[in-house]
Amino acid sequence: MSRMDQQFAFLREIDKEKFIQRQTYLTGGERKENDAEHSWHLAVMAYLMKEYADGEVDLAKTMMMLLIHDLVEIDAGDTYAYDEEGQKTKRDREVKAADRLFGLLPDDQREELRALWDEFEKWETPEARFAHSMDNIQPIMQNDVTLGKSWKEHKVKLGQILTRNRKTSKGAPQVWKYAYEKFIQPNLKKGAIIDDIF
Amino acid sequence: MSRMDQQFAFLREIDKEKFIQRQTYLTGGERKENDAEHSWHLAVMAYLMKEYADGEVDLAKTMMMLLIHDLVEIDAGDTYAYDEEGQKTKRDREVKAADRLFGLLPDDQREELRALWDEFEKWETPEARFAHSMDNIQPIMQNDVTLGKSWKEHKVKLGQILTRNRKTSKGAPQVWKYAYEKFIQPNLKKGAIIDDIF
Repeated sequence: MSRMDQQFAFLREIDKEKFIQRQTYLTGGERKENDAEHSWHLAVMAYLMKEYADGEVDLAKTMMMLLIHDLVEIDAGDTYAYDEEGQKTKRDREVKAADRLFGLLPDDQREELRALWDEFEKWETPEARFAHSMDNIQPIMQNDVTLGKSWKEHKVKLGQILTRNRKTSKGAPQVWKYAYEKFIQPNLKKGAIIDDIF
Repeated sequence: MSRMDQQFAFLREIDKEKFIQRQTYLTGGERKENDAEHSWHLAVMAYLMKEYADGEVDLAKTMMMLLIHDLVEIDAGDTYAYDEEGQKTKRDREVKAADRLFGLLPDDQREELRALWDEFEKWETPEARFAHSMDNIQPIMQNDVTLGKSWKEHKVKLGQILTRNRKTSKGAPQVWKYAYEKFIQPNLKKGAIIDDIF
């Protein structure tokens, strides 16, 4: 296989991310979002919100990190944020998927994308912390737009949201503060999020 | 409205791009692609294929150009590549949409994204030429994956494909050559594309 054969083999394979359904609803609340749509939204969001990142971020790197961070779900499936059983086996399933998917690429790009995914998973660099903030805040925005439909369906408690988002403020403190005040608090008042804290 | 209010108003509004359906089918041929999925695919493709760009390209800029290039279709709708009537009014419909959508952003970002979209439309800089090559080659790849289903449905002729792609080689010559040989020619032989040239 030529270099371009390998690149196109990867590009054809990742088309399947468009079928991986998440639990977040789109505007109108009739259809759930898929991973490709989610990742597209995150990359645009990162570009527009880079001024709020905690630390200097390389923009192209952050955008690519977000565009590929969920590719492993092509094999491993989407593990819902509040599915405790699923979370236990998530890491193993996703590492196997990363080996297979990034393995379709030429060696240098396989290593580059794998390093990018590993960096995201480690949650340490400014890019990884900022990317996680976007990844966590976008569904909160979508849940607010759709009147908390997904939160209500899953009977989500404030304690769960705060535990899941314990590191969200580390990548973009002002955006997390905004999301908490404008998206989470109003839904707590309306009862779309169950209050188990206050 | 605060700066962040405006940024989130834009981010909420562009969720609607996920409902704009294109004519290209996804793997399996059962569902058509939407603009957000398409744009996600293009940004990943641009990152991986930047080595083939004709001229030096700023990667973050190219990726953002691709991520937002179809936003105008939220208002203007998708105009199919081979819809000659639709193509006549496309520009006017899209400029109106750009005014409204980018107008949701703070002034500096409104100007930045509008300039990026205008640059894409002008097809002149290395970034714009490369972005157009990706935008034109990705659906050709998808059509090949789905055994030419969309080409067959629309009775597409080789002459139409070559006219539409008369500038595709200008952004990424090697990738266009590959797409012609590996995706277009085999479908011509199988009759999925009508041969009105040779």
